This record gives sequence, structure tokens and C-alpha cells, in this order.
Amino acid sequence: MALLPDPEPLFELIEALNTLPGIGKRTARRMAYHLLQYDREGAAKISETINQALNELKHCQMCNSFTTEDICPICASQRRDHSLLCVVETAADLNMIEASHGYHGLYYVLMGKVSPLDGVGAQKLNLERLFHRVLDYPVQEVILATNFTAEGETTAHYLGNVLRDQGIKVSRIARGVPSGSELEYVDAGTIAWALTERRTD
Amino acid sequence: MALLPDPEPLFELIEALNTLPGIGKRTARRMAYHLLQYDREGAAKISETINQALNELKHCQMCNSFTTEDICPICASQRRDHSLLCVVETAADLNMIEASHGYHGLYYVLMGKVSPLDGVGAQKLNLERLFHRVLDYPVQEVILATNFTAEGETTAHYLGNVLRDQGIKVSRIARGVPSGSELEYVDAGTIAWALTERRTD
Repeated sequence: MALLPDPEPLFELIEALNTLPGIGKRTARRMAYHLLQYDREGAAKISETINQALNELKHCQMCNSFTTEDICPICASQRRDHSLLCVVETAADLNMIEASHGYHGLYYVLMGKVSPLDGVGAQKLNLERLFHRVLDYPVQEVILATNFTAEGETTAHYLGNVLRDQGIKVSRIARGVPSGSELEYVDAGTIAWALTERRTD
Repeated sequence: MALLPDPEPLFELIEALNTLPGIGKRTARRMAYHLLQYDREGAAKISETINQALNELKHCQMCNSFTTEDICPICASQRRDHSLLCVVETAADLNMIEASHGYHGLYYVLMGKVSPLDGVGAQKLNLERLFHRVLDYPVQEVILATNFTAEGETTAHYLGNVLRDQGIKVSRIARGVPSGSELEYVDAGTIAWALTERRTD
């Protein structure tokens, strides 16, 4: 875009910010200028907190989520229902479920999904760890809460098969019309599923 | 949002990313999770490039823009017209003007604007430095290219007065209908200006 290239350190900063999800070149440049011109303290803070997070955060030995302890507060809590295990793709998904206040069991965070097209198979996802988790601390039911995307469905399908083979009860979260939405604005695929999975009670 | 708070290092990272322009809490969280889950190398790179930019970039002694040298390549170039000085608010504005290929003079980057409401007066902007720049290396004309916002206009007005008092020729970039736009979609204020500032040649 520019006739003269940015000075090297600025160029490299823009390139690095450009790798953030949803941040294009133009926004990255705006961010870099903003940090250097108006918020050098904030810039230093970002750099510092990234390093701190990279160094201090580890994965909970039970649920694989981010934590500073060996066992995260959820897994360590005696007030949670240890007989239920909800499998989610990301720590962000775990947060969304917590925010719903509708679940009081434990979690397992896959930190990804089976995605054959991207070369992410069961091995790369380290699903062995989930299987060990389930065998070491038996649960009554595993709830698969991966996303309703192609990859999320593949992951749920694969996990369901393997877990059922071990004699574990497996369920999948319900798919249907979102709460508060009008049928007129819901896509046909969702309506078809809502009809197929209709409840009789 | 979450029932259980994020672990401290994650919380602090989200807070820090949240200070970036245009990045809300939810996006900051998504970025933090993305960095930790999928792109730890990218995260380290961002941290490193921020530090590098903070440490290595300084302000050009002539134009105040970001550079790694004492004098930036534009100010040092003998192929530029040293008799013209274009005053802009930010280094990003300088880039936009360079990208237009329509200007071959030098620049002065204010790194801000006079904004009385935010407590930024002429002093805080260090306008003395611009005046010294103009006196030390005389120019034939100063082109004010601050934004057409309240603050940009105030800045241009103030600079214009002081510079004219020193006997320096001052001009302001043209305001009018943007290139390629249809009158029907241009705001009335812009059209009024385009009429007032019509050209007869």
C-alpha cells in the first residue's frame, strides 16, 4: 500500500498482529500505530501478559482446560457432579456452558477437533488422554458437546463409537431451533432436525 | 459472563488485548484462547515484535515519524521536494498520502491533534518542535493535511495562524466530494463545501 516500506520493527509488529484471528493487514497496521503513538504502556502490557500466559498457564491434568494449578477449580470442586463428563472443543465452549448455569458436572476440553481435511486425526488430538481420563475416573455418562459443524460432528461420531465400545453411556447435546428465535428466520436444516428430534413429553 | 473466573494469567491477557482499538471483551477472549490453543508461536512472536518495536523505533528528528534511523528515509531523500512540508496527524496518514503517489515533498507528523476536550493542548502536542523544524529548515509552503474532524480543524486553524504570523505560506488540503462517489450518496455538508470551494479553471 505504502510507497516507502514501514521501518523493519514496525513491519514485523504489523505482520505479527496480522496473525490474530479476524485481524486483517489494515487493522493490524492501525493497531500497531495506535500502540506506538498512544499506548506504549498498553503495548508493553500486552507483550508481558502474553509471556506470562504462555509461561504460567498449563493444562488441567483431568480436564485439559487452561489453569495455573495441576487440577483446575472445576475438577477439584466437590460441589460438582463427578458422574457427568461434558466433552467440548475449546475452553471458550466450556465458558459458554458455564455461563448457561445449566450444567454442574465436569468437563473435558479437546483443544481442537478431528479434522481430516486439515490433517488433524484422532492421534494429533491426543484422544488417548480422554479415554484414560474416563477409565481412571469412571463417569456415568459422557455428554458430547462438540460443535454442530462437519468437524465437530465427525469428532462426536468418532468419540461416541469408541466410548460406547468401552461400555460407557454417551449422549449428544440437543440440536434444534434456538431459544427466542422465530421459525421464519431459522434455516431449513435446523427446522428439519427440530422436527426429527421432537420430544413427546 | 463465566461462572468461574478465568485463571489469572488468562484474565490479564484478555484485559490487555481488550485495550487494543476496536477490540471488545469477547473478541479479546477469542484472541487469547486462539493464541494459547492454536498459535503459541504466533503469540510469542507478537510479544517479541511489540518489545522490539518499543525499543528500536524512534521518532525521526526532522519529521517526527517512526523510524529506526535518526533521520527517516523520506527526510533523508534528495529526490523529494524539500521546499514543501505536509503536516499530518499520524504516521498512518503519512502512509495514505504516500500511497496516493500524488505528493513528493516532506512531512511532519504531529502524533496527535489539538483536542481541548481531552486536555490535549498545543503544549502537549509539542508543536514547538514543528515550529523549530520550519525555522531550522525553511520551506516554501506548509500544507496542512490534518483530518476534517473538529480536532483536526482546530489543529489546522491553530497551526495556520501561528505559521502565517511567521510569514510562512500555509495551505489546507481540499475538502469536497470524494473521487468516484455519486452526489446522491454524499452528505449535505460535504456537498455544501464542494460548492463553496468550487474551482474555476
